[in-house]
Amino acid sequence: MNFDHINVPGKLVPDNYLQLGLAAQRSKQRSFKELLEKRKLPETGWSDEQIEELVLQLASLDSNNFPHKVGLGEREARIACKLVARRHYNFGHGIGRSGDLLEAQPKAAGSTLLARLTNALILDLVRGIGLSSCAGCFLVPMCTGMTLTLCLQSLRKRRPGAKYVLWSRIDQKSCFKAITAAGLEPVIIPCQVNGESLHTDINLFREKIALLGVESILCLYTTTSCFAPRNCDDIAEISKLSLQTQLPHLVNNAYGLQAKDIVRQLERANQIGRIDYFVQSSDKNLLVPVGGAIVGSFNESLLHEVASSYAGRASGSQSLDVLMTLLSLGRNGFQSLIQQRAENFIYLRDCLEKFAESRGEVVIDSRYNSISLAITLGTIAVDEKESITQLGSMLHMRGVSGARVVVPGQTKTIDGHKFVDFGSHRNALKVPYLTVASALGITREEIDKFFDIFGKCWHQLSQNKNESKTKTLPKATD
Amino acid sequence: MNFDHINVPGKLVPDNYLQLGLAAQRSKQRSFKELLEKRKLPETGWSDEQIEELVLQLASLDSNNFPHKVGLGEREARIACKLVARRHYNFGHGIGRSGDLLEAQPKAAGSTLLARLTNALILDLVRGIGLSSCAGCFLVPMCTGMTLTLCLQSLRKRRPGAKYVLWSRIDQKSCFKAITAAGLEPVIIPCQVNGESLHTDINLFREKIALLGVESILCLYTTTSCFAPRNCDDIAEISKLSLQTQLPHLVNNAYGLQAKDIVRQLERANQIGRIDYFVQSSDKNLLVPVGGAIVGSFNESLLHEVASSYAGRASGSQSLDVLMTLLSLGRNGFQSLIQQRAENFIYLRDCLEKFAESRGEVVIDSRYNSISLAITLGTIAVDEKESITQLGSMLHMRGVSGARVVVPGQTKTIDGHKFVDFGSHRNALKVPYLTVASALGITREEIDKFFDIFGKCWHQLSQNKNESKTKTLPKATD
Amino acid sequence: MNFDHINVPGKLVPDNYLQLGLAAQRSKQRSFKELLEKRKLPETGWSDEQIEELVLQLASLDSNNFPHKVGLGEREARIACKLVARRHYNFGHGIGRSGDLLEAQPKAAGSTLLARLTNALILDLVRGIGLSSCAGCFLVPMCTGMTLTLCLQSLRKRRPGAKYVLWSRIDQKSCFKAITAAGLEPVIIPCQVNGESLHTDINLFREKIALLGVESILCLYTTTSCFAPRNCDDIAEISKLSLQTQLPHLVNNAYGLQAKDIVRQLERANQIGRIDYFVQSSDKNLLVPVGGAIVGSFNESLLHEVASSYAGRASGSQSLDVLMTLLSLGRNGFQSLIQQRAENFIYLRDCLEKFAESRGEVVIDSRYNSISLAITLGTIAVDEKESITQLGSMLHMRGVSGARVVVPGQTKTIDGHKFVDFGSHRNALKVPYLTVASALGITREEIDKFFDIFGKCWHQLSQNKNESKTKTLPKATD
Amino acid sequence: MNFDHINVPGKLVPDNYLQLGLAAQRSKQRSFKELLEKRKLPETGWSDEQIEELVLQLASLDSNNFPHKVGLGEREARIACKLVARRHYNFGHGIGRSGDLLEAQPKAAGSTLLARLTNALILDLVRGIGLSSCAGCFLVPMCTGMTLTLCLQSLRKRRPGAKYVLWSRIDQKSCFKAITAAGLEPVIIPCQVNGESLHTDINLFREKIALLGVESILCLYTTTSCFAPRNCDDIAEISKLSLQTQLPHLVNNAYGLQAKDIVRQLERANQIGRIDYFVQSSDKNLLVPVGGAIVGSFNESLLHEVASSYAGRASGSQSLDVLMTLLSLGRNGFQSLIQQRAENFIYLRDCLEKFAESRGEVVIDSRYNSISLAITLGTIAVDEKESITQLGSMLHMRGVSGARVVVPGQTKTIDGHKFVDFGSHRNALKVPYLTVASALGITREEIDKFFDIFGKCWHQLSQNKNESKTKTLPKATD
Repeated sequence: MNFDHINVPGKLVPDNYLQLGLAAQRSKQRSFKELLEKRKLPETGWSDEQIEELVLQLASLDSNNFPHKVGLGEREARIACKLVARRHYNFGHGIGRSGDLLEAQPKAAGSTLLARLTNALILDLVRGIGLSSCAGCFLVPMCTGMTLTLCLQSLRKRRPGAKYVLWSRIDQKSCFKAITAAGLEPVIIPCQVNGESLHTDINLFREKIALLGVESILCLYTTTSCFAPRNCDDIAEISKLSLQTQLPHLVNNAYGLQAKDIVRQLERANQIGRIDYFVQSSDKNLLVPVGGAIVGSFNESLLHEVASSYAGRASGSQSLDVLMTLLSLGRNGFQSLIQQRAENFIYLRDCLEKFAESRGEVVIDSRYNSISLAITLGTIAVDEKESITQLGSMLHMRGVSGARVVVPGQTKTIDGHKFVDFGSHRNALKVPYLTVASALGITREEIDKFFDIFGKCWHQLSQNKNESKTKTLPKATD
Repeated sequence: MNFDHINVPGKLVPDNYLQLGLAAQRSKQRSFKELLEKRKLPETGWSDEQIEELVLQLASLDSNNFPHKVGLGEREARIACKLVARRHYNFGHGIGRSGDLLEAQPKAAGSTLLARLTNALILDLVRGIGLSSCAGCFLVPMCTGMTLTLCLQSLRKRRPGAKYVLWSRIDQKSCFKAITAAGLEPVIIPCQVNGESLHTDINLFREKIALLGVESILCLYTTTSCFAPRNCDDIAEISKLSLQTQLPHLVNNAYGLQAKDIVRQLERANQIGRIDYFVQSSDKNLLVPVGGAIVGSFNESLLHEVASSYAGRASGSQSLDVLMTLLSLGRNGFQSLIQQRAENFIYLRDCLEKFAESRGEVVIDSRYNSISLAITLGTIAVDEKESITQLGSMLHMRGVSGARVVVPGQTKTIDGHKFVDFGSHRNALKVPYLTVASALGITREEIDKFFDIFGKCWHQLSQNKNESKTKTLPKATD
Repeated sequence: MNFDHINVPGKLVPDNYLQLGLAAQRSKQRSFKELLEKRKLPETGWSDEQIEELVLQLASLDSNNFPHKVGLGEREARIACKLVARRHYNFGHGIGRSGDLLEAQPKAAGSTLLARLTNALILDLVRGIGLSSCAGCFLVPMCTGMTLTLCLQSLRKRRPGAKYVLWSRIDQKSCFKAITAAGLEPVIIPCQVNGESLHTDINLFREKIALLGVESILCLYTTTSCFAPRNCDDIAEISKLSLQTQLPHLVNNAYGLQAKDIVRQLERANQIGRIDYFVQSSDKNLLVPVGGAIVGSFNESLLHEVASSYAGRASGSQSLDVLMTLLSLGRNGFQSLIQQRAENFIYLRDCLEKFAESRGEVVIDSRYNSISLAITLGTIAVDEKESITQLGSMLHMRGVSGARVVVPGQTKTIDGHKFVDFGSHRNALKVPYLTVASALGITREEIDKFFDIFGKCWHQLSQNKNESKTKTLPKATD
Repeated sequence: MNFDHINVPGKLVPDNYLQLGLAAQRSKQRSFKELLEKRKLPETGWSDEQIEELVLQLASLDSNNFPHKVGLGEREARIACKLVARRHYNFGHGIGRSGDLLEAQPKAAGSTLLARLTNALILDLVRGIGLSSCAGCFLVPMCTGMTLTLCLQSLRKRRPGAKYVLWSRIDQKSCFKAITAAGLEPVIIPCQVNGESLHTDINLFREKIALLGVESILCLYTTTSCFAPRNCDDIAEISKLSLQTQLPHLVNNAYGLQAKDIVRQLERANQIGRIDYFVQSSDKNLLVPVGGAIVGSFNESLLHEVASSYAGRASGSQSLDVLMTLLSLGRNGFQSLIQQRAENFIYLRDCLEKFAESRGEVVIDSRYNSISLAITLGTIAVDEKESITQLGSMLHMRGVSGARVVVPGQTKTIDGHKFVDFGSHRNALKVPYLTVASALGITREEIDKFFDIFGKCWHQLSQNKNESKTKTLPKATD
């Protein structure tokens, strides 16, 4: 719907007034044209109105929105509930086709455009923040774990005889289950413990490769973003190893796009070695609701193998979220989120160090982790182990989410594999600790509030501890 | 936000007027209470306002919507774009936890409620339409194909040594790729051709089991809803075979919930035999946007194995769509959709038979298919094969979607497996045909329009054919 | 935002798929062009999506929505609350200018278009339902009463020396206060009572004109739609009188557009006599929220006098409501509402007659009222007057709104004028009665429910009455 | 809909997770309770979600939203178009009753609450910004001009014999037409010209009162906010005069609530004299769409006279806008808007003075105007008068709205009254000038952009002027 070739009668509006209005609209049309033709992220964000207009324009290209549609198939993207149609801007057909996420759908030109434009903008974003060698990437409407599984499945098609996945230990369930879900055999490579800090054990990787034989190994599998005091894996060295041994290398970059350090390492690792896929969640890196992951690669043809492993047509809802968010932020908006996160990380670290110092604790050195921080809980825990876990629950009840308390002695078995001291990414943890993160979107106000609450809880636990020297510890109440 | 314990001053509104308003709201509260406590689908649909109020109430239980939240974790469900937050009613945390789709999330009581309530309503619906033995079911935010893969993956955990999947041929890519995606080996069991109608070849299943050995076989894999002239697989007989051999049985029930015949067969097959999982798409059966599938089972503990194979936290968007749709329709609304579909199937078949008769064609007998119908295209195609595929494109350009033209001679290779006469579910197809379906939501008006357009296209092709006897066939234009 | 002159890259979507989508959009563009160029109500209603797109297109022509606006004035249509902007589709400038509701605004081409297009569609509607001589009409964003005042004020500019308004009595406050609000002097002409039915007393009008003198009289003022047993005023005769005496004639046609009888009389009255303005509410006739009125005239220049009496710029919210509603209904939708109303009136009358007959009551003959009906409450009231008013409250508490109970003896003084038996439009009412109406949008289901409730209340009152013969009447409870 | 008295089964969500969610909701309920019980503006703004929940809760108290309503009246607030219902949050009944804007409606407890709560919050706001003696105020859903008419009409009821309104000249059409619309006789009191600055001529007021006699005068009528170089009327002195003569005093405070100076003067004027009503627009002072005005008074009973002069039921749309906006801003949000405006005024004045100085012009001294500023256009106009008006159009075409060019020699007649040099508020204007305003919501960025554009236009006109000394002036193009 547009005013081109319409002779609006002067009875409705004087022509000179109208012309001024039409002129003002031309810049909107220009940015729309540029977006479609250049497929680049706009520098500054679009207004809500402009975003919704774009999205509705795209949706109207899908056959379920044709005024005179006649649907004789088994899938016609009919939407029974008007509210549901509205919240999806009338998109119903999903993305991809016949088991290829990147294929176009004849019934749904708009959904096709939506999915591909979104992928193009993500690529432009990813390149812009430092991954300039990135050859392509696309959004998968599944969580990071399932998307890692998808990558493993498509690697298996290339290496059908291989069954082992060499995996640098990180105590996060999903990325481990990604291996077993694919029916593959994880080989856990423990981290090296330097002080309390955890680093990739390259030598152990080498030994395992020698031991198992290259042919039986599907790939090397590393992780960047993680909870302190574990550090980002040494992906540069693993990439070199991958290149030497011709073993594929899969990187779990869960929330690594938000950290410049990690992005830099990824780019460099690819230059000096080999990375087949790096996978990240859309929610943590782009601040959309949970539900999608982004597969990136430095080799475009590798991507198609993953895309064509998805068996069926997929939800377009995640593409819609990402497209709207990227247009809303623009490149500048995203850059400033990244910048603020980095600044808040330093602020959080400084505050945490002050907090630790005054209480006889220490912020564990994990210099290759620029998102998460760990503070020891040695003093508060000396004689009352229970109080440590209580600390976590006290924080939670006071509105603090995401602060994790890790205590020694938690053993967990996942799909038959036993993890001693689960949560600490290592065996033989001695001192309990608490982790906090400066993730994308965090505000300085939140950090301040956190220390206010943390201080109060600490104080209360200290008192309880002193009191408990003579009597039984009472339950903390809120 | 509610008026309980609020003394609304008479200066704002006279108390007797207010009381009348409050009384009227009580029925809304009653239906809310009943929904949560009984977890049953309401008989009549809810109003849009009531649905949105429920959904917003649930979302406000998630920590990202707490007024005084302090987020120190790596995932805090922050949503950057207001429009995105709005279209998700502020849900951001997704569903499931740590790689189990059915687990509760401490940060997200509302999302947990959303997911579980949706599953409860689906179960109530499924039982109500005839699957009274169904023990449980849950929504997976992935397409049907990927969900079938998930089921295969969880079966593999039970039977790690088995690698073959015995699959009754159906020419639909996704359900086949579901096998290869899981890294398993498909064993294709061709259908028996009786007349032009296709039926499950039970004996061949038996032979293959004997040949390969039960231990090496992961499961039997059948399909209910499909394009004519293939019929619904004989799931009763396969179920008996499954019970005898103790081989798991997986049913691809893609759009079978909408057809009473299929539902009846599923229920009966389970009574006399064994079905481990039956999987169906949410979009085709519940008229929501593409993106979800429902796994059902007659054994609740089997479901948990599938749910815990999903590696990560999943999108809640599909649960939201299904919940809103089910509440909007109510049981009566859904029943009447099913009823209309059944009536429209009969209407479509009758019209198609009349159309066929007057043109020397025939509607192929596929009596065990109550959704899709096939009409031969023998006369129009005798000397001009090209005109058949042209028919498909002519229909498409005139707004008809979903009518498929199948011609002999299309060979396709999927993941290394060759399918002769792809699209026809069989080898050695002789007569081309066209399929049409009466799927959920179709209207009589659409059927009438279709025959109007079909007739015109047929007429044009007939003329072209006659003309082409003397000269070269011109391109049909629209 | 549109796809013209944009080279969408094949990488985003295959061109043939795109073309199909674009072709489907052309019909939308055609209807948009036709609407603006012909300014006629579409035959069939538009979809919600199309309506919103139109409205947003218009809004984007207003200067407050220009991307690079620089506002240095005192009124720049800034909107502080995003929710408010959204619900007004970003319209902020209102309509009219410098005290003329029909003038264009240089800052707001879109709002100007909105207002004028709405007026054009109303005119087309009004002509289409039978007022073919109507020369123009426009929406005033004030209630009917204030709009009647506005008409009186503009008549006064023409006849500054006149102060009396001759008004056929109807017991509705607003239309009477419309006279006093303008600082004019009402002269009340009681109705003739024939049986219990009320008719315009033409002779008394004549006598008053003779008595007061034409020069001192501003206008004759009649009412069409009203509560039974008052009938529609005899506007044909009053129009003739108006023509003879050269006195202006103002018609309060509050909810008369919905009734064919009234529309027919208006058209005829103008042909044989004189009507200056007829005024109707937008909410009752077009089913929009309360807040607007429509002034119609058979003489276009008279309209401008009214429009230019509005001192200031007005709300555009009512125009938006009416435009959206008219486009949503289309001519057919509105016609079918009118048709249903007429049928439901007959149904309501028949039910009411049956109800009356079986209870010894009567439906009062008011044949020139085709909307409202009155049933006597003679038997129920014989010895317990209180029970009559109780009936009204019982109905109200059971969800019945709009049923009015009228009892003798209510005297009311409005702006110094005393109305005996207020509510009955007459003095000396003897038998109490209840009125019900078949207004636009009523459903047969509502009528059935009403009689169900009415019957129960009647029964309860009858019992109370019988019981009260021996003891004190208890309070009815719900 | 709320969780009270609902036993949410543990199967849906673990109770401890749920409790955390419920606890977080309590603060929302507390602020709701406080709002209704105390009827005070919240200090900090509410979230969009909270506002919408409140509004929907209120709407559900209206009978048109009752689930089992049975509507037998002529006005049942049926809304035909779902989009319209949605944008009004299902409010349909409007506000007020039977010609009294402040009365409650039995059918619409929610609309009643909406209207009265809005008025209460406005009063709290007005008092908070300095009008602490204000006794009451209410929102009228008509423009400022019509609301001034309404005030005049209700004053006339008190003083039926009076017909003159003594009005200090200001060249704004609506406030003048407000007098004639009411059928009253304006008596124009020219301003005193000191330098180029315009002040109220108190002595002339006194003389006119003596001349016409108090009995024949309805009221004194002044204006606060206006375009420079006119100043705010000396309302303190006029108020004293009003008190002395016992003549009512009506103040047109169009956009005066945004300026602390004006607010202070109003409060003081009432303390030392008499103000009956002060009227302001809701759009300019509260940043809502055009359509409403606020009547304030220092005497509550006077307000009821105005409210009961409104003949009919009124639109609730304006109340909804104001309520949502006030809740969204909170007291702090509004205060900070006021603060920014004041700072931007100083910034605008400083920039304008610099601009003037460097070009041989002057910012006219109008020290009692703290919103609008005027800069002379003496040099640019010396020999080419046309170029001045051209300047206005050049600015307009470059996106500047609200900058007004005033040139000598424009005569205008409104309702029979002739205004020489219309636009300048005076006779015998010599030097043309341009006015700009720092109104609520203006940004520093806009001011900077304005001077950028203004400078360029000035430069172009200067060049044209120089060139035109030798040849004909060419048309400026954009």
